[in-house]
Amino acid sequence: MPAATRARAVDVPALVEQARAGTPRAVARLLSLVDHQHPALPEVMAALAPLAGRAHVVGLTGPPGVGKSTTTNALVRELRERGRSVAVLAVDPSSPFSGGALLGDRIRMQDATGDPGVFIRSLASRGHLGGLSVSTPQAIRVLDAAGFDMVLVETVGVGQSEVEIAGLADTTLVLLAPGAGDGIQAAKAGILEIGDVFVVNKADRDGADATVRDLRHMIQMGDRSAPGLWRPPVVRASAMNGDGVVEVLAGIGDHLAWLARGGELHRRRVARARDEVEALTVARLRARMGDLGDGGRLDELAAAVVSGRGDPYAAAEEMLRRLSGAEGEESSDVSSPRTS
Amino acid sequence: MPAATRARAVDVPALVEQARAGTPRAVARLLSLVDHQHPALPEVMAALAPLAGRAHVVGLTGPPGVGKSTTTNALVRELRERGRSVAVLAVDPSSPFSGGALLGDRIRMQDATGDPGVFIRSLASRGHLGGLSVSTPQAIRVLDAAGFDMVLVETVGVGQSEVEIAGLADTTLVLLAPGAGDGIQAAKAGILEIGDVFVVNKADRDGADATVRDLRHMIQMGDRSAPGLWRPPVVRASAMNGDGVVEVLAGIGDHLAWLARGGELHRRRVARARDEVEALTVARLRARMGDLGDGGRLDELAAAVVSGRGDPYAAAEEMLRRLSGAEGEESSDVSSPRTS
Repeated sequence: MPAATRARAVDVPALVEQARAGTPRAVARLLSLVDHQHPALPEVMAALAPLAGRAHVVGLTGPPGVGKSTTTNALVRELRERGRSVAVLAVDPSSPFSGGALLGDRIRMQDATGDPGVFIRSLASRGHLGGLSVSTPQAIRVLDAAGFDMVLVETVGVGQSEVEIAGLADTTLVLLAPGAGDGIQAAKAGILEIGDVFVVNKADRDGADATVRDLRHMIQMGDRSAPGLWRPPVVRASAMNGDGVVEVLAGIGDHLAWLARGGELHRRRVARARDEVEALTVARLRARMGDLGDGGRLDELAAAVVSGRGDPYAAAEEMLRRLSGAEGEESSDVSSPRTS
Repeated sequence: MPAATRARAVDVPALVEQARAGTPRAVARLLSLVDHQHPALPEVMAALAPLAGRAHVVGLTGPPGVGKSTTTNALVRELRERGRSVAVLAVDPSSPFSGGALLGDRIRMQDATGDPGVFIRSLASRGHLGGLSVSTPQAIRVLDAAGFDMVLVETVGVGQSEVEIAGLADTTLVLLAPGAGDGIQAAKAGILEIGDVFVVNKADRDGADATVRDLRHMIQMGDRSAPGLWRPPVVRASAMNGDGVVEVLAGIGDHLAWLARGGELHRRRVARARDEVEALTVARLRARMGDLGDGGRLDELAAAVVSGRGDPYAAAEEMLRRLSGAEGEESSDVSSPRTS
């Protein structure tokens, strides 16, 4: 983190109050703090936590080229016609650069409309400690606390990414394109397990019927068919023309109702918070190891490993004890991010 | 990790002794333990540490299609003609599947020759805790301790990967293909900083002269020109025909001599061990969080965050303290991987 960013003072209470009132500039500023993992974040997150928990967080994922952006745009348009506000967070784990470029057009589009009920922002991996596993749940909390009815989190790919969309969202939308092998591919990639609503996009193309049939069959074969469990709908859509968008939103709404009915909504949100705390714990550990710097105990342990006297596992155990904050003054010097 | 893997007993002293004597099956078995993060690994690593530190670890990286495999093969051939043994470790962070498939041909090639002075193996991310950042330095230690003169570590891409090759190797070889924009691209991607020896491969193609000139110019402009510092050579090669391979090996050898002269070799190896201990520390922390499972304190903290009463940062601090092994019996139950 550059010293300039660190040094800049942030009036957190004022910023949070403005964001809560829906001021786009305040929301954007809070997201920038998240993006750069600003030292004021612990204070920001503590202030936002009581305000969050009202938005419906919807994840949207699928293979490249399936029409994720088009579908997102169509959903946003339909939601706005119904008077519901929506924030879009596009998460790109693949590159620290592509995120911004990718979304340039859409951000400009938002600016052009000047509609305060829509907010679009990308989040890319900036190489800071913890990466997107720390910053994505924080960005969702910002948008949730800012009062948007729905937060749409769009991610590239499935399975291999640093950020697992299913863990981040209340409802996960999986997009697929028509194609003979798609169904089986989906099963392999674990898509079947994470989807709460399936969308076969570009449904005017050949093979759409087969893909819809395959998906429905696989869902029926799976353990989702037990009574009381959610049975994911498979929706045909052509987001480009707006076809199927109403049905997709109906599926999303039905899922939210199901979540709320059985207590699953709370359970998913606790799991999300648990993932966030885990990621933060790891990031704090890394930060402390970094702060100890050269010449400290870590270097001594590393030198012992190189000389053949030391055991890397025993060294790791010692570091974990030292960095817990339970021992010595060394670690208490770096225990709080608010001191900088 | 599957229970079957966990349960299988390993006679570590016998295995280490066989690997040290150069038995390929024993080396392969040790690498499998690394690949699956077998519970016997702490014992294995402690036994191997005194035997390691003799191999020259050379990293080889560059953009896709530049000819990394061909160059590796040409280097292996030349080294064998000189009677030097060499192990190749191909690290693929991009997929848990492609690694094996990619290398299938080359492993078959090795089998066909039956040369015990060559060992080729791939290492892919298997999704276990710590991933390649834990397993790559361990695999290098296995091959080092097995007595290979050189360990060649080949990685896909630069900069974005989980495993940063420059931190793993004594000497880093950066391959580039001829092309007008390559030089500037290299500078952008940070390639210039990590290369100890640059190879412009496919040097019979148009633009090779310009790429060599650009690279030399950029190296001269950088802060590498101060007296006593290593000035990376830029070698023209055509690995397919074997052209330039002798010069590449000369560059690698010169760099090793320079490293040894100024104490930089030790410094780099300590840094490598430090990275390994850091990665292990994080992996241990993650394993303990996982072992605590559902219903523990982490869930209570997560529920408090969801209700707006809790602060995720304060929760992370508490987890770090709890998981350090300094508090309670809960964590001491999971403090050693050898108990399973």
